[in-house]
Amino acid sequence: MAVCVDMELVAKDAYKAARRGDVIVVIDALRATTSIVASLANGAKSVTPVVTLKEAANLRKEHPDYLLVGEREDHKPKGFDLGNSPAILAREPLQKKNIILTTTNGTKALIKSKESKWVAVGSFLNARAVAEKTLEISRRNATGISFVLAGERNRFSLEDFLCAGAITERFPKNALELSDKTSAALLAFKGAKGNLLERIQNSKHGQHLMERGFNEDIEFSCHTDIYAIVPFYRNGKVEAVA
Amino acid sequence: MAVCVDMELVAKDAYKAARRGDVIVVIDALRATTSIVASLANGAKSVTPVVTLKEAANLRKEHPDYLLVGEREDHKPKGFDLGNSPAILAREPLQKKNIILTTTNGTKALIKSKESKWVAVGSFLNARAVAEKTLEISRRNATGISFVLAGERNRFSLEDFLCAGAITERFPKNALELSDKTSAALLAFKGAKGNLLERIQNSKHGQHLMERGFNEDIEFSCHTDIYAIVPFYRNGKVEAVA
Repeated sequence: MAVCVDMELVAKDAYKAARRGDVIVVIDALRATTSIVASLANGAKSVTPVVTLKEAANLRKEHPDYLLVGEREDHKPKGFDLGNSPAILAREPLQKKNIILTTTNGTKALIKSKESKWVAVGSFLNARAVAEKTLEISRRNATGISFVLAGERNRFSLEDFLCAGAITERFPKNALELSDKTSAALLAFKGAKGNLLERIQNSKHGQHLMERGFNEDIEFSCHTDIYAIVPFYRNGKVEAVA
Repeated sequence: MAVCVDMELVAKDAYKAARRGDVIVVIDALRATTSIVASLANGAKSVTPVVTLKEAANLRKEHPDYLLVGEREDHKPKGFDLGNSPAILAREPLQKKNIILTTTNGTKALIKSKESKWVAVGSFLNARAVAEKTLEISRRNATGISFVLAGERNRFSLEDFLCAGAITERFPKNALELSDKTSAALLAFKGAKGNLLERIQNSKHGQHLMERGFNEDIEFSCHTDIYAIVPFYRNGKVEAVA
């Protein structure tokens, strides 16, 4: 039976994907989900996403050894150990560290997906691994797969859409029934992949980050298939599954 | 100054485009807007879109010489002169005829756009003409341009998205500031144009029409740039502007 692949374009609609019983792939390709993948691939043990700075501070009080990571309006909040920079998180010494992460969009998309049994963390970095792992789970459990795009303030975001297209391209052909949104994302990725970095630099979020000097993060976020891990969000925290 | 090009993915959000003051391009690429373009290019004088069968019947009573055209669940309603088939409307003798049109999605998208001063009727058939005319108007009036996709029952539709991408590709380069949705549509069209017909046949609406024997309409609807007219919806009716 073909696996149905669908998509919610904004984080607030994550509940629709959870209601369908789908395996969810959350994507915040220039920020949170890429940061999570980079951190875990770099040896971190877990990432606990939280929405507010207060929750982050409380959790740190409980676990003084946890690292505080995140951003507010692109900057590292006061008292935090690290900002939400995937490029930096990929090279900092994070072995066996537990991370508390709070960001503006991506962490919310994860938390809004929590009603689903399987919530995978997607990015360009681990696109192929995500495609393989989620297809395996959806076949074993006779469910569909749904992308949930984080977007910015519940707006459609090009980079997340292209990342969903990249993951879709990595599913085996003929194994899937794509929704119109997913077909569109696949076609857009096909149209973009010849100069993916430039396309993403020209997205609204890309332009915003470029203006603030985060070009290294954009370049890093566009590296496709460099990691084979698939992090899953379960019981409030994200851990990698080999 | 660059012209901003944005997009509403479903008809019910047409009011947002109208509120921005944008020149609107309504797209229902496999049905209503393609039928309208075909009818007017084929010599019809006007098309009056109405939502209900009752409105259509009342208008016909007022104007017994008007043709009743439309569909309900893909079929010509009882007492109607013609169904909503763009291929047939392109070859029927329609010279100087006024048409009353009622369909499930596209006519609603037009009517929901009526608060805008300029509502152009877009399709693959007149993609280039629409790009040129709407850009001219938006420059003259310092407004943006917004695509409003009809979709099916307020769902995202691939064919309308690709048509918006086709029109976007026909704007002169560097004249525009594209929203992320519009960039995505442009990239998807670039990814699809090598086999546009097949891509559209594989969309949900395409599959639906194929199963019901409307392949001729799909093929016809994909003919790009065959007409140079740009119909505008104004004061309740659509007429072509040379």
